[in-house]
Amino acid sequence: MNKKSAIVLIACPDQKGIVNTVTGFIAKHNGNIIDLEQHVDQHEKMFFMRLEWDISDFKLAQEDIQNSFSSEVAIQFNMQWSLHFSEQPLCMAIFVSKYSHCLFDILSRHQAKEWGFNIPLVISNHKDLETAVTQTGIDFQYIPISRENKTEAEAQQIQLLKKHNIDVIVLARYMQILSEDFIKKFEHKIINIHHSFLPAFPGAKPYHSAYERGVKIIGATSHYVTADLDQGPIIAQDVEPIRHTDTIEDLVRKGQDIEKIVLSKAIWSHINFKTLVYKNRTIVFE
Amino acid sequence: MNKKSAIVLIACPDQKGIVNTVTGFIAKHNGNIIDLEQHVDQHEKMFFMRLEWDISDFKLAQEDIQNSFSSEVAIQFNMQWSLHFSEQPLCMAIFVSKYSHCLFDILSRHQAKEWGFNIPLVISNHKDLETAVTQTGIDFQYIPISRENKTEAEAQQIQLLKKHNIDVIVLARYMQILSEDFIKKFEHKIINIHHSFLPAFPGAKPYHSAYERGVKIIGATSHYVTADLDQGPIIAQDVEPIRHTDTIEDLVRKGQDIEKIVLSKAIWSHINFKTLVYKNRTIVFE
Amino acid sequence: MNKKSAIVLIACPDQKGIVNTVTGFIAKHNGNIIDLEQHVDQHEKMFFMRLEWDISDFKLAQEDIQNSFSSEVAIQFNMQWSLHFSEQPLCMAIFVSKYSHCLFDILSRHQAKEWGFNIPLVISNHKDLETAVTQTGIDFQYIPISRENKTEAEAQQIQLLKKHNIDVIVLARYMQILSEDFIKKFEHKIINIHHSFLPAFPGAKPYHSAYERGVKIIGATSHYVTADLDQGPIIAQDVEPIRHTDTIEDLVRKGQDIEKIVLSKAIWSHINFKTLVYKNRTIVFE
Amino acid sequence: MNKKSAIVLIACPDQKGIVNTVTGFIAKHNGNIIDLEQHVDQHEKMFFMRLEWDISDFKLAQEDIQNSFSSEVAIQFNMQWSLHFSEQPLCMAIFVSKYSHCLFDILSRHQAKEWGFNIPLVISNHKDLETAVTQTGIDFQYIPISRENKTEAEAQQIQLLKKHNIDVIVLARYMQILSEDFIKKFEHKIINIHHSFLPAFPGAKPYHSAYERGVKIIGATSHYVTADLDQGPIIAQDVEPIRHTDTIEDLVRKGQDIEKIVLSKAIWSHINFKTLVYKNRTIVFE
Repeated sequence: MNKKSAIVLIACPDQKGIVNTVTGFIAKHNGNIIDLEQHVDQHEKMFFMRLEWDISDFKLAQEDIQNSFSSEVAIQFNMQWSLHFSEQPLCMAIFVSKYSHCLFDILSRHQAKEWGFNIPLVISNHKDLETAVTQTGIDFQYIPISRENKTEAEAQQIQLLKKHNIDVIVLARYMQILSEDFIKKFEHKIINIHHSFLPAFPGAKPYHSAYERGVKIIGATSHYVTADLDQGPIIAQDVEPIRHTDTIEDLVRKGQDIEKIVLSKAIWSHINFKTLVYKNRTIVFE
Repeated sequence: MNKKSAIVLIACPDQKGIVNTVTGFIAKHNGNIIDLEQHVDQHEKMFFMRLEWDISDFKLAQEDIQNSFSSEVAIQFNMQWSLHFSEQPLCMAIFVSKYSHCLFDILSRHQAKEWGFNIPLVISNHKDLETAVTQTGIDFQYIPISRENKTEAEAQQIQLLKKHNIDVIVLARYMQILSEDFIKKFEHKIINIHHSFLPAFPGAKPYHSAYERGVKIIGATSHYVTADLDQGPIIAQDVEPIRHTDTIEDLVRKGQDIEKIVLSKAIWSHINFKTLVYKNRTIVFE
Repeated sequence: MNKKSAIVLIACPDQKGIVNTVTGFIAKHNGNIIDLEQHVDQHEKMFFMRLEWDISDFKLAQEDIQNSFSSEVAIQFNMQWSLHFSEQPLCMAIFVSKYSHCLFDILSRHQAKEWGFNIPLVISNHKDLETAVTQTGIDFQYIPISRENKTEAEAQQIQLLKKHNIDVIVLARYMQILSEDFIKKFEHKIINIHHSFLPAFPGAKPYHSAYERGVKIIGATSHYVTADLDQGPIIAQDVEPIRHTDTIEDLVRKGQDIEKIVLSKAIWSHINFKTLVYKNRTIVFE
Repeated sequence: MNKKSAIVLIACPDQKGIVNTVTGFIAKHNGNIIDLEQHVDQHEKMFFMRLEWDISDFKLAQEDIQNSFSSEVAIQFNMQWSLHFSEQPLCMAIFVSKYSHCLFDILSRHQAKEWGFNIPLVISNHKDLETAVTQTGIDFQYIPISRENKTEAEAQQIQLLKKHNIDVIVLARYMQILSEDFIKKFEHKIINIHHSFLPAFPGAKPYHSAYERGVKIIGATSHYVTADLDQGPIIAQDVEPIRHTDTIEDLVRKGQDIEKIVLSKAIWSHINFKTLVYKNRTIVFE
C-alpha cells in the first residue's frame, strides 16, 4: 500500500472534459495516478470518479490541495467531492448487542493489522461482550436501551462518539433501531449488516422468514443506515445455497459466516474511500 | 442411468420404523436399492423419502407394485405417496411468449437427448418463435390471449394438453397469468421461471426494480405455480453478482443466463421425480 | 447500445500524463466519453486502457481517427493499441466436434440477436451437427481430421476462414488440437472452452480426473489458444459446487451448463473489445 | 441440537439389505432415527452411511451399543464402522505459525460456543500469537522447528497431544510439513487448510502462482493430511472471483476470508462425525 497518497471522490452532472480536467490537475502539479475509476450513469446523466495519486513528488502542499482542486477543477463542474489522505486512517466505533461473530471478526482483523483504521470505542446495550472487548484494550461502554431512556441513551452515545472523533459507526448485529435524529448526524457514516439478501426479508427474524418461504439461497446485506429501516443504500451482499435439509438453526449458523464476511467487505470499501452514494444507490469502486 | 428402475416418493407423519418397513419391502421382493434419500422435518414432525430401486430382478411384476406397496407399507404409515418408473418419461408442454432464451435452452437439451422426456407441444400467445419450434418437429400452437378471450383460450390450451397427455407444463418466460381454475387442474405440475431471487421483486419488471434498489446481486427463481402470483413453492434459485457499472440492459443480459440454467435445473429435478411439496416448501432430493 | 461509437484499446509502459493526453484528444475533437476503464499493473509498470466515445459529433472523420490518434497520442507513449467501431461487428467461425451444448448456446444467442456479430461459418470434423447448423442458414463445412491429413485439413480450414473474413474463431468443444502454425495465424483470436477450472486438470477427461481427485467444486475455463495446450491467457472461469453423491455423469451434466455460460461470457467480452492480453494474462474490462 | 444421540458411520461393500438391517437394529431396540444419509458408490460397489438416532429411550445401555451393533449388524456386512455420542465432544489441538486469521476464527467460534468441542491446546513454532491464545485460557506451547530438531520437536508435540487426549489436529496455516511418522499416528485426524483450489497450485506461494497464471477465480481447500503434500482427501473447498485489477496483496486479503470459512466448515463436518474417507476421497454428509 502506498503510504503517501491522496484520494478524491467526485460526483457531478456528466459533461465533456471532466476526466481531462481532473487528470490535467494531477499532471500539472506533478502527481502520479495510482488508481482511476470513473463511472457514468447514462440514465441519471451523472459522473462519478475515484482518483488516487501519489503525493510524494506533488508540487502542492498537502494542506493546499483542498483549495486548489476546488478552484481549479471542482467549481466549474459543480462537483460534490471529498478529499482523503491514505495516511489519515478513519476512526471507527462498533455498536453491538449479544451476538459476537461480527464483532470478533472485526477485532481479529484489527489485531492482525489487516486494516488501516482505529477502533477506540465499542458501545453495547448488554454486558456480554465486555471482557472480550476490554481484553483488546478498546474502551467498552455499556449503555442499556429501553423505550423510556432512548433519547438520553443516544445523547450519551453521541457524546462518546464526539469524544473519540468517530468517523464511521458499524452496527455489528446491534439489535436496536437508531432514531432519525441520530442517523441524520451521521449520514452515510453508519454501516449496518442485515441477515438477509435485501430487499427480501427486511425487519426481524429473517432466517425464520427464509425458512418459512422455502428459499434455496440465504444471504446477508451490508448497507448505509437511513431513516427507512433496512432500506438504505446497499454496499455489499453475498449469499449461500441451502437445502430442505437445513433447519432454522442451520440457516443461522451458515448465515453468520456470510454476515461477518459481507460486513467486513463493506467496511473495507468504506475505510478505503471506495464508496459513493447517489439516490439511495452506491457506487463501490474496486 | 439405470433403465429399469422404480421410484417412490413418500410423505407421511414421522414415526419409528418407516425406513425399516420401506426397505424391508424392497428386500423381501428382492429389489436392489440404487438411491435412498430421506428427510425428517423435526418442526413439522413429517417424514419424506425418495427411494429408487433396480427392478430387473424384482419378484413383483411392475403392474403389481402399486397395490402391494400400498397394502404392505403405505397404509400403516398413512403415507401420501407416488410411484414412478424410469422407463416412462414425462410428457412436457412449454408455454412461451416472445423471449427465446429459456425455450431454446430446453430445446437444445431435448435435441441433445440430455434429458429423458418428450416435448410434443409448445403453446404461445405470439408467433415469433413458431419457426424455431416447428423446425425441431414439435407442434407449435398459437393461441393469442386478451382480457376478453382468456377463458376460451385456456379451454383451448387445456384441450391441447389433454390431447398430448401432458404431465408437466413449463412456463418459459410466458408473460401471461394463468387462471386459478387452470392452475388447480395441474397442481404442482406447472413450473415457472421468475427473473428475480424471490421473494425479492415479485411481479413485473424485476430487473428494473433490482436496479432501482441498487442490489449487488441479481437472481432467478423457478417455482411451482400456485394461485398466488410468484408465491409458489421454490424448486431452484441461483444468483449472480452485479456492480454499479451494470445498466438495466446488463442485468437483463446477465439475468437471462441465470434464468435458463435455473429453469432447466428445476425441470431436471421434476422429471427425475426428485421433488416433493409440503406446505408451500419443496423437498428437492439430489 | 450506442450505434456510433469508437473504442481504443491501449497497452503501454506506465508514465505520467497518459490519461490526460488520451482524454485531451477526445475533448479536443469534441468526442463524448461513454466508458473509460484504465488499469495500471504496478508490478509490470504497464498501463492498460479501454476508452469508448460517442463519435456522432466527433470533428474527425471516422477514417482519419487511426492516423490522428497515432500521431497525436500513441507515438509519444509508445503504445500498442487498436481502434474499433461499434457499428462494424466481428465475424465469427465456430469449430465443433460432436458435443452440441456450446454450439447451440451460441446459435441461440445469435438467433435471438442477443449479440452483435456475424456467424457465417461452422466447421466440424463430424457430421452430427450439420442439420442443426444449416437449419439456421449458416454454412456448415465438414472437414474430417486424421493424423495423416491434418496439414491439408488445416489448409482447407484457413482458406474457408479467409473467404469468410473471419475475425475470431471459437472452439466450442472442438476435440482437435490445432497446429502451432495455425495458431500463429490467429494470435489471441481463437477462444477455447476447457471443461475444468484451469490450471487444474488440463488435457483430456478433466471430469474423470476431478472425480478421481475428489474435488468439491468443478469448473470451466475459457481462454485464448496458444501453442501450449490449455496454457493460454484465461478470459473467463466459473465453478459449481459438487458432492460425493455426484457421479462422473453428474459432473458432465452440471459441467456442460458451466461450459456454455463461461464460453459465451468470454465471447461477449471479446466481441465488445473488452479484452487485452499481456504476458499470458488478460485484462478484461467490464 | 439433540444432546443424547448416537451416530454410526459405516463403510462396506454394497449388497442388498444393508439399510433394512441397520434400521432394523434401531427399531428393535426402540431407537428413533434423527438423521439418515446413505450413499452408494456404484463404480466402487461400496456402501456408505451415517445414521444418527435418539438414545433417550433406547433399550440398550450406551456402553453395550458397540458390541451389540457389531454382532447383530456389522459383522455380516463386513463393515468398517465407528460409533460416536453427541454428548462426548471431540478434543482439538490447533497448530499455527504466524498468520492469525484462521486461528482467530476458530477461537471466536469457540468463545461464542458455536461449536461443541474442546480446545485445550495450541502449538506454534512462533511466539507471535501466544498472548492472543493464553488470553482465552487455552494452553499455548511454543515449539520452534528447525531442520535439525524436527524429530525431537515432533516427539514433544506428540507427548502434548497425548497428555491432552487430542482427537483432532487442525493446521491453521501451520507453515511446517509434518513427518510421515507423525501423520501415520493421526490418520484422517489432521485437517489442513491450503490456500488454493487444489489440485491447482499445490505447495508454496499459491497466490503468487494464481496471479502469474492469471486465473479469474481463487480458492481454498481443506483436506485431511496424508504423506503426499496437499494430496490428501478434500473435505471442503470454496472460491471467490477475482479480476485483473487485483494485486497479489488483494488475492491474499480476499483469500484469507475464504481460507478461514472453508477450514471452519471442514472442522464442523469432522466434529459432527459427518465425514468418511474412502480411497483418498471423502464422503461428507450434510
